[in-house]
Amino acid sequence: MAQAITPPRGMRDFLPAEKAARERALGIIRTSYTAHGFDEIETPVMEDIERLHSGLGGDNEKLSFSVLKRAIPGPELATAAANDDPQSLADLGLRFDLTVPLARFYASHRAELPSVFRSIQIAPVWRAERPQKGRYRQFVQCDIDIIGEKSQLAEAEIITATLATLDALGLEGCTIRINDRRLLTEMLNVFGFGAAEHPQVLITVDKLDKVGPDGVVAELRERGATPEAVDALDAFFHRVTTLEFNPFGVRAITKALPHGVDEVLIAELAALAEVVDPELLVFDPFLVRGMGYYTGTIFEIAHPDFSFSLGGGGRYDGMIGRFLGQDVPACGFSIGFERIVDLLQAEQIGLPDALLLLHESDATPAQLLGLKTQLIAAGTRVRLERRTKNTKAQLDRAAASGYITFAFVTSDTHDMADLTPKPL
Amino acid sequence: MAQAITPPRGMRDFLPAEKAARERALGIIRTSYTAHGFDEIETPVMEDIERLHSGLGGDNEKLSFSVLKRAIPGPELATAAANDDPQSLADLGLRFDLTVPLARFYASHRAELPSVFRSIQIAPVWRAERPQKGRYRQFVQCDIDIIGEKSQLAEAEIITATLATLDALGLEGCTIRINDRRLLTEMLNVFGFGAAEHPQVLITVDKLDKVGPDGVVAELRERGATPEAVDALDAFFHRVTTLEFNPFGVRAITKALPHGVDEVLIAELAALAEVVDPELLVFDPFLVRGMGYYTGTIFEIAHPDFSFSLGGGGRYDGMIGRFLGQDVPACGFSIGFERIVDLLQAEQIGLPDALLLLHESDATPAQLLGLKTQLIAAGTRVRLERRTKNTKAQLDRAAASGYITFAFVTSDTHDMADLTPKPL
Repeated sequence: MAQAITPPRGMRDFLPAEKAARERALGIIRTSYTAHGFDEIETPVMEDIERLHSGLGGDNEKLSFSVLKRAIPGPELATAAANDDPQSLADLGLRFDLTVPLARFYASHRAELPSVFRSIQIAPVWRAERPQKGRYRQFVQCDIDIIGEKSQLAEAEIITATLATLDALGLEGCTIRINDRRLLTEMLNVFGFGAAEHPQVLITVDKLDKVGPDGVVAELRERGATPEAVDALDAFFHRVTTLEFNPFGVRAITKALPHGVDEVLIAELAALAEVVDPELLVFDPFLVRGMGYYTGTIFEIAHPDFSFSLGGGGRYDGMIGRFLGQDVPACGFSIGFERIVDLLQAEQIGLPDALLLLHESDATPAQLLGLKTQLIAAGTRVRLERRTKNTKAQLDRAAASGYITFAFVTSDTHDMADLTPKPL
Repeated sequence: MAQAITPPRGMRDFLPAEKAARERALGIIRTSYTAHGFDEIETPVMEDIERLHSGLGGDNEKLSFSVLKRAIPGPELATAAANDDPQSLADLGLRFDLTVPLARFYASHRAELPSVFRSIQIAPVWRAERPQKGRYRQFVQCDIDIIGEKSQLAEAEIITATLATLDALGLEGCTIRINDRRLLTEMLNVFGFGAAEHPQVLITVDKLDKVGPDGVVAELRERGATPEAVDALDAFFHRVTTLEFNPFGVRAITKALPHGVDEVLIAELAALAEVVDPELLVFDPFLVRGMGYYTGTIFEIAHPDFSFSLGGGGRYDGMIGRFLGQDVPACGFSIGFERIVDLLQAEQIGLPDALLLLHESDATPAQLLGLKTQLIAAGTRVRLERRTKNTKAQLDRAAASGYITFAFVTSDTHDMADLTPKPL
């Protein structure tokens, strides 16, 4: 009765070495953020389907997996067929991000949480993406959020904690590209784009990294944006030749913006330079961040060795309170767990004191268990294997899974002192 | 736009203290089993629906949650309605246990795994149970399995590792109730029950703990079991007055069985006493274990303080190979993670060196971040909170979430040496 034995499309099994690397990274992230005062929480993987489709999740809502109701009466099924509406047969859905569940959690438990709540969530989410390299239908997100802090202390704590966490993971040298949604709006106004044009213009500007300034200008012209505004943007692109505005501060920000942008906003953003090491912040006036819910500061992690971002976030004051029916200030950061684990897996780490015991057929179970118990008590990890004809293959496999030494066990091996471990 | 804000029915949110207790228990379990040579793996939460309904999961298959196909053409929906078959609209399902995914994983990755593979899985499963106290629709299972070991070395390693893990969790004093499925069959044969009666008789015998010997006998009579066999069982119950057969060994087992049961089987089971401390094993001739797939030894964890079992398992040689199309020996143990966490939560554990910094309005963000960075570098966990009018409530809340000390920060506090921490 052999059946298909691969995981479902776009989802992954994790073999021991991969799982260990993932847990190691999770442990480092958890320890670092915890030291910085964040508290880990967990929510169920499913939420009621109306909640998942309440508009908080943007385009990701369309990618969510729906869970069939447990009992569906015939007439309900017939109605779904008549209306061509299979979704009406689902009452739960798998979360597509950790922000919608956080908003629901916060609304539910607010009375039990500190007035400024710092949360960590490290958990899987599901999206029915078209499978492709590096895109999975189940993947882990790692979010930190500060809820209830209006001031830029939230941004400062989040950026500081995240840089420390990346350092702890061995990814030294990260910088934070930073911008403010309100400055982007101001800038588009100064160029002369109408408010109605902004959303589409931002989608185009977001492609700057990929298509370059000329590509952005061309696309905007093609899409029929206000010609004068596009000309102004084009002229600005020619004046600003680099996105490196380091160290971060009022001067760097002012230099990177067209004249006429509100000085108060600039000063507010620049105030972060007094709190976070300004050498680690890079102002990027064209950083957009996809999601529509950001209301202030936005940021992304850049690493000199990688062209892609290692995570991002920002302030989104309007959203967490949606389930409460009132606005609550919030600022969050999501680090790209799957990308980071891929980078870390490159360095294979041996298990300290891991010993493979290869036993000959004359060794008894009592003897083997006795040895194993002795060795574990002495701090050694032990794997028992019956010695096979192809001993070399056994040794290679154990070495590949992180074992460091091996020893043979015969009927004469009664004590760990009788073992003569050799390197694998 | 206030909406319902509770988690879906039968599912739970975990607040920081609960989440920390769960992660602490997971960490101890992971470390202990890893030292014993087990390797952690992970599979996706979903499996193809045919796999979940392939008969390996017993009654739990009926409780599984199905995931709606992503695109359902109108005619397919109409057919489902015509056949009153909503399940045909689902292509994936959430796993209801970790054994079906393990069988699929093993079949898929066998070539990359050691010849004797020791797996750990600690992961959530989902069952549409009727919600009641202690029964959840999402809960964590913690399974260890040894695949590919025919001899009782597997049972011995699994029992030893599990007892060590329970010790590490602080649940000293556990014993293992043990039996063998083949002995149960033999015993029913000796009493004179027909083979066709066995499944129903076992279901009734499984209630012995709850209804007592007289209850079992009465139910069997009522169900029309062979009267002579029921009389023989009744007589046996009167002869065997206690289930405490310690220390474990041939003598204890023989004493607990009716005459005529195969001596070879008894000797095989008793051989475990040479490997595991026999004082920790208790022979229970009426231990059944619910699942139909067990083929040999079965066991359950008993703790003197609790009436319920803390976990159980056994040998199930016929099952893991189902997706491979060949038999593979296997033996496993599942510890009751949710129950164990409930027991551990009783002892609230403080965070070492956790400090609440209450800042007055004159302290600047730069000052606060500077202090926080200094303290974290010195190994202290730090939570910043703006001091409110109700300072006492703030202190109580921090104490409840494990903080040990607090200190005030004003515009004069520039260095951690300026702080005067007080106990909470």
